Amino acid sequence: MDLQTSPLALPFPSMPTISGVTVRVARARYKDWDRADLTLIEVAEGTAVAGVFTRSACASSEVELGREQVKSGTARALVVNAGNANAFTGYRGREAVEAIMEQVGEALSCEARGVLVSSTGVIGVPLPKDRAREGIAGALEAEPCGWEDAANAIATTDTFAKGAHTAAMIGDTRVELVGIIKGSGMIAPDMATMLGYIFTDAVVAPAFLRECLDMANAETFSCITVDGDTSTSDTVLAFATGKADHARIVDWDSPGADAFAAALTDLCRRLAQLVVRDGEGASKFITIRVSGAANDASARRIGLAVANSPLVKTAIAGEDANWGRVVMAVGKAGEPADRDRLSIAFGGVWAARDGLPVEDYDETPVAEHLKGQEIDLEVDLGIGEGCATVWTCDLTHGYISINADYRS
Amino acid sequence: MDLQTSPLALPFPSMPTISGVTVRVARARYKDWDRADLTLIEVAEGTAVAGVFTRSACASSEVELGREQVKSGTARALVVNAGNANAFTGYRGREAVEAIMEQVGEALSCEARGVLVSSTGVIGVPLPKDRAREGIAGALEAEPCGWEDAANAIATTDTFAKGAHTAAMIGDTRVELVGIIKGSGMIAPDMATMLGYIFTDAVVAPAFLRECLDMANAETFSCITVDGDTSTSDTVLAFATGKADHARIVDWDSPGADAFAAALTDLCRRLAQLVVRDGEGASKFITIRVSGAANDASARRIGLAVANSPLVKTAIAGEDANWGRVVMAVGKAGEPADRDRLSIAFGGVWAARDGLPVEDYDETPVAEHLKGQEIDLEVDLGIGEGCATVWTCDLTHGYISINADYRS
Repeated sequence: MDLQTSPLALPFPSMPTISGVTVRVARARYKDWDRADLTLIEVAEGTAVAGVFTRSACASSEVELGREQVKSGTARALVVNAGNANAFTGYRGREAVEAIMEQVGEALSCEARGVLVSSTGVIGVPLPKDRAREGIAGALEAEPCGWEDAANAIATTDTFAKGAHTAAMIGDTRVELVGIIKGSGMIAPDMATMLGYIFTDAVVAPAFLRECLDMANAETFSCITVDGDTSTSDTVLAFATGKADHARIVDWDSPGADAFAAALTDLCRRLAQLVVRDGEGASKFITIRVSGAANDASARRIGLAVANSPLVKTAIAGEDANWGRVVMAVGKAGEPADRDRLSIAFGGVWAARDGLPVEDYDETPVAEHLKGQEIDLEVDLGIGEGCATVWTCDLTHGYISINADYRS
Repeated sequence: MDLQTSPLALPFPSMPTISGVTVRVARARYKDWDRADLTLIEVAEGTAVAGVFTRSACASSEVELGREQVKSGTARALVVNAGNANAFTGYRGREAVEAIMEQVGEALSCEARGVLVSSTGVIGVPLPKDRAREGIAGALEAEPCGWEDAANAIATTDTFAKGAHTAAMIGDTRVELVGIIKGSGMIAPDMATMLGYIFTDAVVAPAFLRECLDMANAETFSCITVDGDTSTSDTVLAFATGKADHARIVDWDSPGADAFAAALTDLCRRLAQLVVRDGEGASKFITIRVSGAANDASARRIGLAVANSPLVKTAIAGEDANWGRVVMAVGKAGEPADRDRLSIAFGGVWAARDGLPVEDYDETPVAEHLKGQEIDLEVDLGIGEGCATVWTCDLTHGYISINADYRS
């Protein structure tokens, strides 16, 4: 099946190399295709690492191992296999991951546990060890490549390569932050979602890097959903090579800590939004702002209940300002709400206020807004100060075609 | 939009009249259509009533009032409006319901609070009082009709009329139980779903009727889902007119109590399954049996996570035995699970056992099974004794067409 590029796609940005990071790709041929599908990224000695992982009870061996590995706070390499998730493959899957760790560790003269591995693709087929071995051998001999090649090599059903770049000033020193990400379906909230990798030359202590990544994750990756389905392999890793020339950031009192944390969150938000923009079958990018909830966590859960509602998503696909369906979704969220204080707006125009349709509601500007690709939906609960923003896409025939009409 | 009859439709069964119940329908013209859309069902004095209602935080006035009314344990009449849900309509919606209660109470010489009202259809438009008044006047003058007329009159986007009938022996006395139900989209678990009405001539104390209905609801209506979206108006009411000739059933020690409870559960299961059979766009009826879970409640939540997964539902629509997606759905349920003890079968054939694909797995009979309309999916967690059965349908282009391609 040929997937057309998402109408919401953004061009791949110009992204700098990060000092201390070397990117290579190779053809392991995990599927019957002729494209790079193995990515090997080497990071300098002393690189700090932090990770967030799926909370799935059926996580892959890669996730189980990775969760342990990042506890050391350092890493030397990352391998990403595309085309085979190696999930639900028991001891054979685990052996395949351990073989990769050993092979790369030997080649880079580092401990095997310094090699992080991710795999994405079909569930239930053990990763073929021989193809992985040959792929890694190929990658070790390959010339270094750029971020866009890596973003393409980690992709599966993605319709465009996804990367983002930002920078932060730590005192007088400019540090670069870049990220690549893949994901399109099986995207759900409440945990690190998809495969995403962030690299920076900033000098950051592992514990502080983890704290920043957790914070960023809570308001970015954990606030997106395409279909409410959660992958067994979701992983986001952040690597800080420490090659920049500034005093090490160890906690919030370190100079530049706030700037670094803000830049990381900004990068994560852009990466997360790129995944929504490649949501399977997506034709509209939807921003849902929830305010007036009992607290922020409640606002996020209400936002996600709206974002995951098939009836809300299909209404927006049909360019129908059907706020009754939004009421329904708020009602089912299981969170504090008062029907008679609820207000709903599309594109900044309030359709319902305090539990009643707005009397002189003019649907014309709303209809115009819904014809666009960027849809804004506001929900004000009117009962507290809690707020959150979540992002999703609409639900169209394209989603059904991708997931039902063709065997995966 | 003309909706084609669901390919999973069942013919309306032959259903007896229930002594003490009089059914009438009328045209209130709540929408621009020429069909009966108001149903008035009168029940004999002394009829016991019990109800289960949506847990939506944005429930309609009908639900708010009904929840209070059934506490008395008796009722004299039921009015069902189709085409307008009267939800999210504030005080005006509530006044419309109260006006109906008063009009019918006056006509039947009973208290207004003995008149239960349900409404289903568009959210956010107050029920027009004048049309309701004329509709009720018409119904009061109409000739009594049969169950199929009522099942058609309460329907909205349903593609076929839904009713079920069973009987129970209470000692030597045969009692009849009949039910009608409507629902097709916005169907979700975890509460009484849809509009369903059950009538029996059995002699049952209200408290026991409520206990039986709660029990039946837990394993029938609360175990179905079409799209995971929960209506603001969901209501199931059971009326027992007490016209049969047997000793009153007051608790589990009363003769016939078990038989009555079993018959009621059987009736509820059939009604619930009819709603799934009319799931928007459904082409396959899916039964998901979960066993080996930590406990029954956990099994049900896992079953519903599988049943609500867009990726599982589209895979089955595509006749793809994609058990990897089932693993994913089990993993995201947030319930105890052990990846390496999980087993999955389609149509009785195990595709994965104890966390590994079955070595000599023959997909031929599974592929054959998936081509049919009745799909069986088994999930064995392998960690406990908990089990549950849930029912759902697949997710097809039909769902998108119904909910996105046309304005509602």
